[in-house]
Amino acid sequence: MDYSEQALKQHREWHGKIRVNTPCPMNSREDLSVAYTPGVAAPCLEIAKDVEKSYEYTRRGNLVAVVTDGTAVLGLGDIGPEAGMPVMEGKCALFQAFAGVDAFPLCVRSKDVDEIVHTVEMIAGSFGGINLEDIGAPRCFEVERKLKERLDIPVFHDDQHGTAVVTMAAMLNALKLVDKKIEEVSAVVNGAGAAGTACTELLMALGLKNVVVCDRFGALYEGMPGMTEAQAPLAARTNPEKKQGALAEVVRGADVFLGFSAPNCLTGEMVKSMAADPVIFACANPTPEIFPEEALAAGARVVGTGRSDYPNQINNVLAFPGIFRGALDVRAREINDGMKAAAARAIADLIPEKELREDNIIPSVFNRDVVPAVAKAVAEAARRTGVARA
Amino acid sequence: MDYSEQALKQHREWHGKIRVNTPCPMNSREDLSVAYTPGVAAPCLEIAKDVEKSYEYTRRGNLVAVVTDGTAVLGLGDIGPEAGMPVMEGKCALFQAFAGVDAFPLCVRSKDVDEIVHTVEMIAGSFGGINLEDIGAPRCFEVERKLKERLDIPVFHDDQHGTAVVTMAAMLNALKLVDKKIEEVSAVVNGAGAAGTACTELLMALGLKNVVVCDRFGALYEGMPGMTEAQAPLAARTNPEKKQGALAEVVRGADVFLGFSAPNCLTGEMVKSMAADPVIFACANPTPEIFPEEALAAGARVVGTGRSDYPNQINNVLAFPGIFRGALDVRAREINDGMKAAAARAIADLIPEKELREDNIIPSVFNRDVVPAVAKAVAEAARRTGVARA
Repeated sequence: MDYSEQALKQHREWHGKIRVNTPCPMNSREDLSVAYTPGVAAPCLEIAKDVEKSYEYTRRGNLVAVVTDGTAVLGLGDIGPEAGMPVMEGKCALFQAFAGVDAFPLCVRSKDVDEIVHTVEMIAGSFGGINLEDIGAPRCFEVERKLKERLDIPVFHDDQHGTAVVTMAAMLNALKLVDKKIEEVSAVVNGAGAAGTACTELLMALGLKNVVVCDRFGALYEGMPGMTEAQAPLAARTNPEKKQGALAEVVRGADVFLGFSAPNCLTGEMVKSMAADPVIFACANPTPEIFPEEALAAGARVVGTGRSDYPNQINNVLAFPGIFRGALDVRAREINDGMKAAAARAIADLIPEKELREDNIIPSVFNRDVVPAVAKAVAEAARRTGVARA
Repeated sequence: MDYSEQALKQHREWHGKIRVNTPCPMNSREDLSVAYTPGVAAPCLEIAKDVEKSYEYTRRGNLVAVVTDGTAVLGLGDIGPEAGMPVMEGKCALFQAFAGVDAFPLCVRSKDVDEIVHTVEMIAGSFGGINLEDIGAPRCFEVERKLKERLDIPVFHDDQHGTAVVTMAAMLNALKLVDKKIEEVSAVVNGAGAAGTACTELLMALGLKNVVVCDRFGALYEGMPGMTEAQAPLAARTNPEKKQGALAEVVRGADVFLGFSAPNCLTGEMVKSMAADPVIFACANPTPEIFPEEALAAGARVVGTGRSDYPNQINNVLAFPGIFRGALDVRAREINDGMKAAAARAIADLIPEKELREDNIIPSVFNRDVVPAVAKAVAEAARRTGVARA
């Protein structure tokens, strides 16, 4: 279904998808004297003495900035910072509706890594966390890396890590169904952008060894000429057999296909060439790398997509609200691999063994157990890994 | 009364004075498809075609950033960006409670003019207006000037212009009472910081000619050695008789004293040395330049202060909510002198002639007619001066 007309109409009526409100009464001189001058001087002075008190006396500890440069908005590409705002506002609405996190959208008028980093660094004192969104690869990697170095609050590029966490959750359950071990499977990740890179890295942290990453020209391998700064280290850590060639060649015999790439680039023939019981996650949106009916007809055992109208939706909404909820709850300094893996396991574990089926490997985004389970797992992992401050 | 204990307790309970909410339902796949993907692509593309559409499809047109560097917070001085946040959140709460403006607090981790300007410039696409707050003089003048040059949305340093507007409103009514004309009175402005400078400039735009500005060392005069970059042009435009000397000397014979300076620096003796029917606005907060009872005992005819426990409170809350409401309503490119003067007249006019008394020259901040009257006047002035875009 095409939601364009309905979305335009609704967006005009909403006139923006966020509101900034206050819980403070402002009806009398007494009210103003407590919430504003002269009373407000007291919390100001407490924070001046100990900046950590900003988590107690201001909204900071529940506030996440949703930051974009507008260069990789949905599948629309570089549409500019202001044009990215409806997505950022939507993200903020999801943060509040799903996890009670106050999130505020900021579009940055720059495509320069250091300028974006510097802008976020300058305003970081207002926030308890930074969610980077729809920033194009490979710039997104550098922006995130530099911000993580400079800030002591969580910095999380959702297009990378939210996707990786949900994919990992789906993978954990899919491999149970096909009775394969992640250490032993061979996987092909199609798409060397933000999502593909982060997914590969998280799955490797989980034990995946035999993985080949492809970009539109085919397999990345160590020493391949013409790779970007982000691709070279990825190629060095993956593709142990140094396979070369197009997707159709490297996917032959693989157990798993993970697509974060382009519509219709995986054919039924390619699926047929894979190992027994292939697992296919075709996450290009809205048109996947292969439609589920075609993949299943070609012998796929488990198929997931980004779409809500097919089973097994790989949807970031399963991850980011609970991840930030958990990180904020313990005032985590960062969101590390341990916390991401814990989130993935928590999501996977919401499907009990007896309900696990080829068309039910991952919970619905409207399952109310998801956010609390993810938040709890993430908070525990933050404590375990020593990054919790509360 | 000391509100410190109560304010600390309340601030801990509120845990921040702002909330970011959403008016969008997020309860079904249909809801998400309209507010988020895939529907959200449609408003994004509309804005990509015409960036002005961001006012229609996002919250931008009702959103004001309340920006500080934390260097001149209340009377507390340079307490740091995070420590300024309770004031910024309070300001945002007032914006929403008084004028339905969504305002969001941002503290900037820099004291460098160009760094502050650049940071605000980078994120300006998320907002319909910028309210600068508690940035120390003389840096505040440069920050405002440069932002006004670079942005096509209103930039308003409330400590300057909000104060100036309310002082001008009080002055208009006080001069009616003493039956003097602004073109003919002599005034002394004590305090050459943000508020004193802006007040002097706005009153001169209104017709005041004979005004002397004093800093803590006495009268500023053209050619005086050791002035700052901000003081020199102010001295050149004021003090036509090139008076020199301390406050006690230059205030002699003056019709009006305006203080934005230090506690208890105006004595009863000085008031006695002024012209007949002196008008005294002693705005230092919480301890004014002279307390009203002492000023009145020394012969002052009209006295205003920043305090809520005396008559004639000079309070910015009378100005900034309505000024931004009016500017946002017509999507003004700037807030100019004409709009400020219109706001001041609208506030003054809310006291009908027959209710005008020495202890009633300015409406209460809880008078519900204030914001609509100011907003209307400001919107009309924006249209008249050609800066309205809607």
